[in-house]
Amino acid sequence: MALYEFLHSNSIKIDLALEARDLIRGATGREIPGVIEEKQTFRHGTVTIIKIMDPKAEAIMGKPQGTYITIESPDLRFKSPEVQESVGDVLAQHLKNLLKISEQATVLIIGLGNWQATPDALGPTVVKYSLITRHLHLHMPQMVENYRSVCAFAPGVLGITGIESAEIIQGIVEKVRPSVIIAIDALAATNISRLGTTIQIGNTGIAPGSGVNNKRIGINFQTMGVPVIAIGVPTVVNAAVIAQMAVENHNKITGNRTPVNSIQIGQLIQELFKPFEGSLIVTPREIDDLILNAGRAINRGITLALHPRVAREDLEAVLC
Amino acid sequence: MALYEFLHSNSIKIDLALEARDLIRGATGREIPGVIEEKQTFRHGTVTIIKIMDPKAEAIMGKPQGTYITIESPDLRFKSPEVQESVGDVLAQHLKNLLKISEQATVLIIGLGNWQATPDALGPTVVKYSLITRHLHLHMPQMVENYRSVCAFAPGVLGITGIESAEIIQGIVEKVRPSVIIAIDALAATNISRLGTTIQIGNTGIAPGSGVNNKRIGINFQTMGVPVIAIGVPTVVNAAVIAQMAVENHNKITGNRTPVNSIQIGQLIQELFKPFEGSLIVTPREIDDLILNAGRAINRGITLALHPRVAREDLEAVLC
Amino acid sequence: MALYEFLHSNSIKIDLALEARDLIRGATGREIPGVIEEKQTFRHGTVTIIKIMDPKAEAIMGKPQGTYITIESPDLRFKSPEVQESVGDVLAQHLKNLLKISEQATVLIIGLGNWQATPDALGPTVVKYSLITRHLHLHMPQMVENYRSVCAFAPGVLGITGIESAEIIQGIVEKVRPSVIIAIDALAATNISRLGTTIQIGNTGIAPGSGVNNKRIGINFQTMGVPVIAIGVPTVVNAAVIAQMAVENHNKITGNRTPVNSIQIGQLIQELFKPFEGSLIVTPREIDDLILNAGRAINRGITLALHPRVAREDLEAVLC
Amino acid sequence: MALYEFLHSNSIKIDLALEARDLIRGATGREIPGVIEEKQTFRHGTVTIIKIMDPKAEAIMGKPQGTYITIESPDLRFKSPEVQESVGDVLAQHLKNLLKISEQATVLIIGLGNWQATPDALGPTVVKYSLITRHLHLHMPQMVENYRSVCAFAPGVLGITGIESAEIIQGIVEKVRPSVIIAIDALAATNISRLGTTIQIGNTGIAPGSGVNNKRIGINFQTMGVPVIAIGVPTVVNAAVIAQMAVENHNKITGNRTPVNSIQIGQLIQELFKPFEGSLIVTPREIDDLILNAGRAINRGITLALHPRVAREDLEAVLC
Repeated sequence: MALYEFLHSNSIKIDLALEARDLIRGATGREIPGVIEEKQTFRHGTVTIIKIMDPKAEAIMGKPQGTYITIESPDLRFKSPEVQESVGDVLAQHLKNLLKISEQATVLIIGLGNWQATPDALGPTVVKYSLITRHLHLHMPQMVENYRSVCAFAPGVLGITGIESAEIIQGIVEKVRPSVIIAIDALAATNISRLGTTIQIGNTGIAPGSGVNNKRIGINFQTMGVPVIAIGVPTVVNAAVIAQMAVENHNKITGNRTPVNSIQIGQLIQELFKPFEGSLIVTPREIDDLILNAGRAINRGITLALHPRVAREDLEAVLC
Repeated sequence: MALYEFLHSNSIKIDLALEARDLIRGATGREIPGVIEEKQTFRHGTVTIIKIMDPKAEAIMGKPQGTYITIESPDLRFKSPEVQESVGDVLAQHLKNLLKISEQATVLIIGLGNWQATPDALGPTVVKYSLITRHLHLHMPQMVENYRSVCAFAPGVLGITGIESAEIIQGIVEKVRPSVIIAIDALAATNISRLGTTIQIGNTGIAPGSGVNNKRIGINFQTMGVPVIAIGVPTVVNAAVIAQMAVENHNKITGNRTPVNSIQIGQLIQELFKPFEGSLIVTPREIDDLILNAGRAINRGITLALHPRVAREDLEAVLC
Repeated sequence: MALYEFLHSNSIKIDLALEARDLIRGATGREIPGVIEEKQTFRHGTVTIIKIMDPKAEAIMGKPQGTYITIESPDLRFKSPEVQESVGDVLAQHLKNLLKISEQATVLIIGLGNWQATPDALGPTVVKYSLITRHLHLHMPQMVENYRSVCAFAPGVLGITGIESAEIIQGIVEKVRPSVIIAIDALAATNISRLGTTIQIGNTGIAPGSGVNNKRIGINFQTMGVPVIAIGVPTVVNAAVIAQMAVENHNKITGNRTPVNSIQIGQLIQELFKPFEGSLIVTPREIDDLILNAGRAINRGITLALHPRVAREDLEAVLC
Repeated sequence: MALYEFLHSNSIKIDLALEARDLIRGATGREIPGVIEEKQTFRHGTVTIIKIMDPKAEAIMGKPQGTYITIESPDLRFKSPEVQESVGDVLAQHLKNLLKISEQATVLIIGLGNWQATPDALGPTVVKYSLITRHLHLHMPQMVENYRSVCAFAPGVLGITGIESAEIIQGIVEKVRPSVIIAIDALAATNISRLGTTIQIGNTGIAPGSGVNNKRIGINFQTMGVPVIAIGVPTVVNAAVIAQMAVENHNKITGNRTPVNSIQIGQLIQELFKPFEGSLIVTPREIDDLILNAGRAINRGITLALHPRVAREDLEAVLC
């Protein structure tokens, strides 16, 4: 039984398009029709652009039609301003291509997740250090002549506010009227080595049930009325994935070929995790640092993409 | 030159109705027409109810017509669950009188201020520990049969989001459609002994320019379309007030009677504080603890007022 | 292959005496000679007292000779002051039995771990809220007539200070000259349901290699020259344990009986976790709350055990 | 009545040698014998080196004989990596001159103060981001060939631990046996414009009663047995100073020349501040940011001074 089948049978969402493609290809042994891929390298990593071209590919991939850009940089795990700059520059360039907005367009940055729970704090962390200018455009426009109007917001999580993130964002969108939303969210990966080292940028927003805190309502063009660019970084691995990988590896050693019902083993694992059902996470001890490192690269990328004429000191400020 | 004249001449807002009344009476030497007052005592303090009855009294007091209830409890400064309970019970009773809503009415709690700056963190702190039920009413109503629908939100501050708090709240109000808003905010006092020991409840919302972070737009019935109950606690004293009080005291000792131009000394003091103009605060070193103590009393009061049938364990949970 | 053999073969330390006993009995099918056990119940849980009586039992159990008291309270997971009080009272009574010190004896509370990494923050959290009196005994003795002299300290972790916790504590012990040390530490469990719900009190201190941050040097009578009472709560499960449990369960379903080399599967799992080797933790998302809940129960227990004549308000203060 | 006389009469310690000199010169109108001064400028500020040469100068200045280097950089207030680098480089050069230690010497960095109270958190903040190598020198020496052995520690404050900072440091010094201590501490200034913008480096350690938290025992060569270099940044202004300055300014305007007893007005001001006596602080709202900015400059300076062959990426890491 492959990991893909296990995840699929147990309705575990795969957040990264790159992982979805790899798992599906691994399970089927062939290319996915309607999915185009392009690969690039840069000083500190690689960039993979996956395009889901038609509804059939959408159905197989379990992700909406659109473009998914994945930056992989294993060095991002270490606290290195050089790597953060390098990744940020690559992110800026790809983000700019997706954004396609005029200089006058207002941008709303949304930091999803819960700042009180570290592995879920990526969004609020990015918002905290964002370069914000909208209030200056309204009250002292001469100070921000070289800058676009940008505002940023962290809507919290349903369990703390009692309000869906999507509802809150809709309310703000109606007041601020941005041309585009950039939504930052912590993701779950199936591969441990991706934690803190992979950044996905997508132009299809955030689907319901995605991210570390499953959202009930999507945050996308359909629900917001404006394009939503999603930027995500895996910060946890589902504990069920660890269990499944262990079983797979064990079967390899022992040569065990007994066919197993995916749903059955899913239930078994769920039984195992019952006391904290749904909320048990696997994360590295240094997750706080990983989030700061990735957050800095993302803030550099967003700042460069939104404000091409940013002063050096303002750009450096989002890095600290 | 009295403190009142000094504040007035230099357009420094007085957040507490009780202080406004005392300062005006001190300056004029007589009762303010159109202002009614009632005083009560309880185990750990006193309650003063001030009603501003007509537009003339509104103009003199510099505060909108309405009811202002001030709970003073010097013991609230110390970390004492007993005092927190006592103050919370008194707050609950007065809050209930102001609320006048049906059991079915949804309530939105708003925590104004910046959780990153301690003296301004009262609102977000109260929100963090609030008893939230709206999401359960939507998804598992049987769990919250004895509870009203309540949601809570901290909109942050203009300098961090680029969006006015009032705009954000308006957006949320349009989605959530609450019957009433309870807005929590840190206040400035003119008297040091009030820091962390005085709670004001008012039914006129929050005026523009009030609170520790001066809001540009008011948060009140006019801007929100629903009644706004404001709950505030002084956490800072304006540094200019310290200066002014020192001068007054000094004049008393030296018998100095030279008449001084209020605006002139205001400018002098402003000059003194120039490097951090507007942002220099006077606060006790233990401000974090003061905010936690007052926050617990407020959360107990709100919980008892909103959920009369609250289980003992849920009530205790907002205290820890 | 049983979990015990797996842990043993891969030199994974079992922090809880109760788990060690259960796993060894499960593997061997019989009682462990030289290990005495007693069980009690209380309103919100059970207490198991395990005594390791001789060197042979010490070798089998992998834990030094002494007394290990385990309080199990599944309700401790929920934010309930009532449960915290109940568990704290039971803890106080057993702690008092272990302490056996005069009223004049000074006690040093040590909070091991890293306050910046949530699952490791139990020790510093307990220290933060401890009732400290040593400085008052030195400078205003009349204020603390009813209280013992207590000081508390969090030595941080090797990776942040560059100094072993044990070295720092030795230095402080030489200055403070306490009669006994109470050391608080976060533990690892093999059973998910123990996270935040089990408290172990032992009179043998902390062995090298124990706890969430493996200490190189033990913190015990041998290294400190005074008795060390250890109080611990499991906050993480080793990811390898999850893997191993999944394999075991899978084998049960598939009836796989191929004998597997423990070391071999240990290596496989290590390979799987390589990118964050040693530092990958499994923890519930709500770990912050679990630590606060357990920390409050521990602080109540310590306070009651050390200060039998504590005033109600001082006792309540450590709960908030 | 001059500010100096006021401070002197009321036993308020002046932390900055530069301010002491200015106030004494202002009060006496002439140079202080036995005090030598040298001034330099750099891209983002000035450096003043004050040497107190003999016991007579020591008595007048109220500070022990030794060297006090004051870096003033008004731009340090703004979040600018360029300024932080510039100030850090200047600090490194002067620190190196004071240190005079061999490459093999171990250095102990001590972060005084309370990380829970922002204006007092400078020391713990610097420790948190320090480049620590002592544990690597002990366990993997080949990794740190180009680095000196450095450890770092934040002893907390008396009110939280019940133990004097000096006692704790003595205990650690006896274990670690450093060649020199670098102690970081938040200071009080008499001039608002110094908050977060002035760094004092001195080779006489920390006198009793200095810093934001008055220490009872000094941290200096006499108490520690090794040289203590102190690095401090003002983060608060004593509220009494604000009061005094206001009175002075007021007297200037009104031409009031009534002679006032310094002690008398000191008592008056103390009366004014009674409810939070001793603990009322005047600080800018953005104090968190000021501490981060100054902390980064200090960490760069210390790192460059201690590790001349530091790799670029390690140096950058202490800045983020």
